[in-house]
Amino acid sequence: MAVYTEVTDEELVAFIAGYDIGDVLSCKGIAEGVENSNFLLSTSTGPYILTLYEKRVETTDLPFFLGLMEHLASAGIPCPQPVCGQDGQSLKELSGRPAAIVSFLDGMWPRRITFAHCAELGRRLAELHLAGSDFRMVRQNALSVAAWRPLLERSQGRADEVSVGLADLLAGELDGIEKDWPTDLPAGIIHADLFPDNVFFRDGRLSGIIDFYFACTDAYVYDIAICLNAWCFEVDGGFNITNAHQLLHNYRKVRPLSGREMVALPLLAKGAAMRFLLTRLYDWLNTPADALVVRKDPMEYWHKLTFHKGTDGPQDYGLEL
Amino acid sequence: MAVYTEVTDEELVAFIAGYDIGDVLSCKGIAEGVENSNFLLSTSTGPYILTLYEKRVETTDLPFFLGLMEHLASAGIPCPQPVCGQDGQSLKELSGRPAAIVSFLDGMWPRRITFAHCAELGRRLAELHLAGSDFRMVRQNALSVAAWRPLLERSQGRADEVSVGLADLLAGELDGIEKDWPTDLPAGIIHADLFPDNVFFRDGRLSGIIDFYFACTDAYVYDIAICLNAWCFEVDGGFNITNAHQLLHNYRKVRPLSGREMVALPLLAKGAAMRFLLTRLYDWLNTPADALVVRKDPMEYWHKLTFHKGTDGPQDYGLEL
Repeated sequence: MAVYTEVTDEELVAFIAGYDIGDVLSCKGIAEGVENSNFLLSTSTGPYILTLYEKRVETTDLPFFLGLMEHLASAGIPCPQPVCGQDGQSLKELSGRPAAIVSFLDGMWPRRITFAHCAELGRRLAELHLAGSDFRMVRQNALSVAAWRPLLERSQGRADEVSVGLADLLAGELDGIEKDWPTDLPAGIIHADLFPDNVFFRDGRLSGIIDFYFACTDAYVYDIAICLNAWCFEVDGGFNITNAHQLLHNYRKVRPLSGREMVALPLLAKGAAMRFLLTRLYDWLNTPADALVVRKDPMEYWHKLTFHKGTDGPQDYGLEL
Repeated sequence: MAVYTEVTDEELVAFIAGYDIGDVLSCKGIAEGVENSNFLLSTSTGPYILTLYEKRVETTDLPFFLGLMEHLASAGIPCPQPVCGQDGQSLKELSGRPAAIVSFLDGMWPRRITFAHCAELGRRLAELHLAGSDFRMVRQNALSVAAWRPLLERSQGRADEVSVGLADLLAGELDGIEKDWPTDLPAGIIHADLFPDNVFFRDGRLSGIIDFYFACTDAYVYDIAICLNAWCFEVDGGFNITNAHQLLHNYRKVRPLSGREMVALPLLAKGAAMRFLLTRLYDWLNTPADALVVRKDPMEYWHKLTFHKGTDGPQDYGLEL
């Protein structure tokens, strides 16, 4: 929870004058999100989200992210729609930061996940993948398999501070993941960070998908693998196969999975666990104790990775072959 | 900036069903306020603020605070209006915390303070004092002069960690303040924490006064003294007599100040500086470095106290005698 950049009222009023969205009524920092500063902006035409992009987002990637949201929203995906200023641009600058205004989405992210959430998620994720297939821009996944070894090496010397022997265990696992990682799976636009706090529901229906700032071009089934990790484990660490079945079953109703995608799922789930483990590990070791951000436990993802190691194939994820 | 208590979507929907304010559309934690957890709640009837009272607020004081806001809002003061549930009560419980919903106020708090803000503030503060005069409940000021010695004693052993010699300087100043503190000034409801981030403006007019959780029964001119400290010093520490003049001049147009109140002003300004210095000092020494709250520099208020020591009388605050 963080607002890193302060916006003065005068700066904001001048900024909003460049849009046709009415007058500023209020603007409050939101205590969610860890990468950027987000404000709930209310104007005489309604609520919006104002985002100031902080240093962890590459400025050169912003046209991709905003273009993608525009594309997906136009295709009916319930995602934030960037608002253009009078100059036709959605990417602006405010308080010395790149900034954008997007539409506000109703709904709340689910704190207690049910299989019904996972069913909705599966269907909407497949729709997102299909809707992104004619988006023309490409962004390599900067946090895919090639990035994991360098990321591990940056934490290796201190990984044992988190758990004794962790550095060696991770190096061993990574050897196997790198050796077998598939490169020829159906690919396109993926969200790549579809955790529950990025998905809103209202009256049981998915009403919003937000935070496209890790979106990239990669294997569709890798996006599913991220969701399995983020949505299908209980708080006590147990895998919820009912959730996984609902997610996969409803995904496949919209976008069928090929045999190769299904076979690849356990390895990709292991890789997805490795990806979040490594970024959490790095953040854990490098976030100052007095930072505004709550650090996330990397070991949660070691336990998930361990589950994936023990599976015998895609059927262990509730997938009907 | 902090949200201390997590509210699940199911709990919230059940909670809102006890009110006649429509259906929940969204609920986002606000990155402002340090005492309680605040959420911007949007329902089908509009925006509201949902507050969960955390441990620093005495539960027994909540009927006073909510009753006062109700009273002042009914009298036309632009302050949050508590919303009653179907049971006629505004004080409820949510996620194990006392909780209340209040009306949402438009406007933004001023980041750069001008004399025009101070003029508006003076007028509205006097109106608040008048509007509170027929409020029947009483709450002693738990942070007035009698509380300062015990507060100093809790920090005394470590005050020199902040500035060498500070403990002795504060004890000396406090001797003088205690000896001369007046007890017979006109008194009634005061806000007692009217910092710029608790006051909203829109189009140059004061549109909201929030955060009544230090409100109490005390000398009106002490409330003015708090505002002089909070609104009339430049970032570089200099006293802005134009701001002070505007504040006092416009206050007196609505509620005249007696001669005794004017004479007391410098001492009360010194006392107000002491009060915020002591709470900041305690928080500085006792807030864990990894807390979600940004600690505020106690020495800012030592410099303000030093200014008040050097004044020759109320005319040094721009007060026309």
